[in-house]
Amino acid sequence: MKIIYDKARAPNPRRVRIFLAEKGIEIPVEHIDLGALEHKSEAFAALNPMRRLPVLVLDDGTPIAESIAICRYFEAVQPEPALFGRHPKQIALIEMWQRRMELHLLAAIQNVFRHSHPAMKAMEPVQIPEWSEVNRPRVTEALAVLDAQLGRHRFVAGDDYSVADITALVAVDFMKPVKIGVPPEMTNVLRWHAEVSTRPSAKAQ
Amino acid sequence: MKIIYDKARAPNPRRVRIFLAEKGIEIPVEHIDLGALEHKSEAFAALNPMRRLPVLVLDDGTPIAESIAICRYFEAVQPEPALFGRHPKQIALIEMWQRRMELHLLAAIQNVFRHSHPAMKAMEPVQIPEWSEVNRPRVTEALAVLDAQLGRHRFVAGDDYSVADITALVAVDFMKPVKIGVPPEMTNVLRWHAEVSTRPSAKAQ
Repeated sequence: MKIIYDKARAPNPRRVRIFLAEKGIEIPVEHIDLGALEHKSEAFAALNPMRRLPVLVLDDGTPIAESIAICRYFEAVQPEPALFGRHPKQIALIEMWQRRMELHLLAAIQNVFRHSHPAMKAMEPVQIPEWSEVNRPRVTEALAVLDAQLGRHRFVAGDDYSVADITALVAVDFMKPVKIGVPPEMTNVLRWHAEVSTRPSAKAQ
Repeated sequence: MKIIYDKARAPNPRRVRIFLAEKGIEIPVEHIDLGALEHKSEAFAALNPMRRLPVLVLDDGTPIAESIAICRYFEAVQPEPALFGRHPKQIALIEMWQRRMELHLLAAIQNVFRHSHPAMKAMEPVQIPEWSEVNRPRVTEALAVLDAQLGRHRFVAGDDYSVADITALVAVDFMKPVKIGVPPEMTNVLRWHAEVSTRPSAKAQ
């Protein structure tokens, strides 16, 4: 078994790194150079036709792409500590918040990044500044929903640290390259961000 | 317990309808009028601050938004028939294909729809025709990945019908309003689409 990551700090590989660190799982790593567009090669497409990282390769050679699919594989193999929930209501709430953080917060940040950052010119077929601008206020809107939730709970999906915290942490840290800050009045997000950033997993390489 | 749907045929509520039909689960339904923008109201925002449908309201009043979170709730409550997989590798493959069908195929179709269809003028703050055009070829690219997979397997994530088939079916049917057809050479997609469309769940209301 091995896992294929980038060498830099792309958000999706980082999600899996943090997840594995929280589980205490170590597996062999192979690096691919995103900057050299190695993930766009035909050889890589055989592993993941969507040409994205990370990819987990199982012992029988089966490639598993999509960060959350990789995380779920390890949750099934090693259930503790549970990061996707234990009972139906908690499982549903964690999935809901994981998806909100990914599809609303992280996706909005990625849309801003891909369609405005000079480094992404080689990656995106067309950069559309107007699409970047539509997404910019959505980042703060999603953060406001997160702030309200963190005013009621210690962690993103409730009282337990979960995969939803991992996605939210990676998203908030990925606001830096697009120069969006957490508004100072969102004290719950700031309190939570300080706490989850001190976990050793936040620095997983 | 109740579930809140639209009255029309939006893709996400349809995913949950098909899922519940496959499980043989019936629960009380409340309808909201998407055309009248009822989901944009403050009352609805209290249930789902993202202002999207569907929403499941549990007996204790907890709202669960996000279609796949709702599906996972019912999978946890009633595991059979299993639609998210049974063992680690199958769980990971179903999650991977569910996400590919949602994040690459369905999302590309939705981007075309939202940014080109006259009916979406009232829903989207800004329609960006260029963003619609960037997404149009991505629909066919994602279908090609699906076609290759369905050349090797009966269903989207392998030999068993799963939630990945539900998302893919809803996506392919949602190509109609944006006037994109399955290319006739994609015979595996056409064979699979004919088969899953004959399941009673495909017509779930």
